[in-house]
Amino acid sequence: MKASSFQYKTLKEAPKDAELISHKLMVRANMIKQLASGIYSWLPLGLKVIKKIENIIRNNLDQNGCLEVLMPMVQPKSLWDETDRSKQMGPELLGFKDRNDRDFYLGPTHEEVITDLCRQEIKSHKDLPKIFYQIQTKFRDEIRPRFGVMRAREFLMKDAYSFDTDEKGLNERYMSMRKCYEDIFNEIGLKYKIVNADSGAIGGNKSEEFHVLADSGEDTLVFNNEGFSSNIELLENDLKKEIHNKIDKNDLSDIDSSYGMLSIKKGIEVGHIFELGNKYSEAMNLSVQVNNKQKFLEMGCYGIGVSRIVAASIEQNFDSEGIIFPKSIAPFDCTIISINEKKSVAVREKSIQIYSLLKNRNLDIFYDDRDVSPGIKFSDANLMGNPLQIIISEKNIENGSYEVIHRENQSKDMVSEKDLFSLFD
Amino acid sequence: MKASSFQYKTLKEAPKDAELISHKLMVRANMIKQLASGIYSWLPLGLKVIKKIENIIRNNLDQNGCLEVLMPMVQPKSLWDETDRSKQMGPELLGFKDRNDRDFYLGPTHEEVITDLCRQEIKSHKDLPKIFYQIQTKFRDEIRPRFGVMRAREFLMKDAYSFDTDEKGLNERYMSMRKCYEDIFNEIGLKYKIVNADSGAIGGNKSEEFHVLADSGEDTLVFNNEGFSSNIELLENDLKKEIHNKIDKNDLSDIDSSYGMLSIKKGIEVGHIFELGNKYSEAMNLSVQVNNKQKFLEMGCYGIGVSRIVAASIEQNFDSEGIIFPKSIAPFDCTIISINEKKSVAVREKSIQIYSLLKNRNLDIFYDDRDVSPGIKFSDANLMGNPLQIIISEKNIENGSYEVIHRENQSKDMVSEKDLFSLFD
Repeated sequence: MKASSFQYKTLKEAPKDAELISHKLMVRANMIKQLASGIYSWLPLGLKVIKKIENIIRNNLDQNGCLEVLMPMVQPKSLWDETDRSKQMGPELLGFKDRNDRDFYLGPTHEEVITDLCRQEIKSHKDLPKIFYQIQTKFRDEIRPRFGVMRAREFLMKDAYSFDTDEKGLNERYMSMRKCYEDIFNEIGLKYKIVNADSGAIGGNKSEEFHVLADSGEDTLVFNNEGFSSNIELLENDLKKEIHNKIDKNDLSDIDSSYGMLSIKKGIEVGHIFELGNKYSEAMNLSVQVNNKQKFLEMGCYGIGVSRIVAASIEQNFDSEGIIFPKSIAPFDCTIISINEKKSVAVREKSIQIYSLLKNRNLDIFYDDRDVSPGIKFSDANLMGNPLQIIISEKNIENGSYEVIHRENQSKDMVSEKDLFSLFD
Repeated sequence: MKASSFQYKTLKEAPKDAELISHKLMVRANMIKQLASGIYSWLPLGLKVIKKIENIIRNNLDQNGCLEVLMPMVQPKSLWDETDRSKQMGPELLGFKDRNDRDFYLGPTHEEVITDLCRQEIKSHKDLPKIFYQIQTKFRDEIRPRFGVMRAREFLMKDAYSFDTDEKGLNERYMSMRKCYEDIFNEIGLKYKIVNADSGAIGGNKSEEFHVLADSGEDTLVFNNEGFSSNIELLENDLKKEIHNKIDKNDLSDIDSSYGMLSIKKGIEVGHIFELGNKYSEAMNLSVQVNNKQKFLEMGCYGIGVSRIVAASIEQNFDSEGIIFPKSIAPFDCTIISINEKKSVAVREKSIQIYSLLKNRNLDIFYDDRDVSPGIKFSDANLMGNPLQIIISEKNIENGSYEVIHRENQSKDMVSEKDLFSLFD
């Protein structure tokens, strides 16, 4: 992609209300634009990152035998009455009437809809096990939307739902999805932790959260060295209070407890997996016959905050210059920076040539062909955060060797033209 | 994909309220499931077709230099007040209040949002021309939703918006998108016509519709042999009435008119392109400086009904047995039908072997490994509508040659194992 053909209007200043670095950098890099409180448009640069995350998620889920569906965003209130969640969810559940005075909600999650679907679709234990998933826009009317897309009202989510005849099957499905989530976050390339979690309004017997580790994380996580890990919201009140007090003093040193010495980390929740059991299947009568007895299905549910991952990955990977995207989800594999190409035919021609060569190898290249100073190109490339920058200048062309900057640590190499390809192996 | 791992519950009977053949077949083939009036879930089989259509659209638009974005489904009413469309659109525009008593609409289209976005993003004529697009879920509160996904309330749409400084530029953009649409519908493989159209609530100077030709089409189109083509809604009242009268009598023979002899066809609108001019840019003050004068931008808008294309392609391509999908959007390239594989190790092993071989060539294969009669497998394969069926039976294995059925005309070939690949060239 050439900068001149792209939508690429970087900003020097972040919006005044932006508190988090990811919010500031995403706005400055021209990834998102606010439409209303907690409601954002994804601009071309931001959407490219979303698509790369979606692809990683989709490939891993498909490999795990999950089946993709697409459920409606507009859901009848009657379904939520069956599970009584129309009362439990509170004002985050945004309701309205259609022109025929029927009550609907904007879907914040899809347990009711998938359970309704499956009570029509699943008629026998032979149809099981099954895992359905979708990547879809949700709406939660947060009382205080903030932090950009980190806590937005409208957001993109991957939600999956598993169905089994018994708890053993549910546990197998749960463990396969847990493994699948590990594969997903490893492939994205983020440092993350899995912790025991509170199941909240979703409910069920057991749940675990996946947290991207970042100092700015809203959640506090504790770990001992024997495999215990937990969101502190799950701890006894006294211990929780003690940890909160430490954190208020910016003290994240280890703390002694009945669980042994606990290390403390801050995290951003990007995934949450639940063993729901038969909470929804019983309320909505989703059952099959097993050994001549009608049995409510054992369900699991598995969420990933797709749009939130973009922000979380930035909270974990940035420096004073801008974003440092992990390779797998960077908007482009590389930025080509041409130095004064409007004044130099040689630079322009060489830039176009290298851009075409790399593109033909199926690499996703951002070629900054704008008529702006080298300084602006360098700082914008650092802001955007692609893993590599290749500098095309008259001097480099003369030497037959190009400056390559690794965004991660700003280290520089000189690379000959024929070796440029090997940068991407 | 193996049938045993898929969600694949075909139905003998269509829902009673289904009038259109596409609605009947999509429900029977397990592609969609109704959640509420005009609101459908896409099951795995249906979503596969959607994804193939999306890919064709996306590739063609990207090649045409369009930039993909993702705008919110929830839109502030204040934007619609700026263009006065909050009044004009009527009750199809579904409105609600959020928890802070602010007014929003569920987006039925995005002219206001994109114009608001661009008045922040486009600051100079150097930023132009630009075409933005998205593939996104829309909601229109139709008074009488029916015909399955053909006239649903919640539906998937590709909407694009172009921005130029002058009418000449707008016309260039319009013609490039018109050409791009022709490429898209040609690649999908549908018989279609382009006709002059009424611009309705979207507005603007000029618009054309893309219609998939089908006897069940709700629209009536006329053509003379000198290139004139029009939706009859655009004709003088007398002529329109005359044509309506003919159609009521099921008479689609040519009709004489002031435009010469007109042939009459029925069509399903799947695309609509508009030269909007400055209707939205003026109402919302989207302008740039040209020759020292502030100039409102010339906009175009370009829609494709993604989910409707699935239904329209079936209305055009079916027989008494079921769906006949065009190759490019069929859920799978081929169905493998194993005959009595539960009783024959040879059939089972050969089926798995051929399935794996074809899959390894990146072909998308549906392998019907269910323990059901050959008759059910044949009729379900015809219902699903993949272009080819390969029959694996003991007799075929002995002969080293497999029966291949071409779904389009039900013609049969005997093909040796090594020649199976060439079926897909």
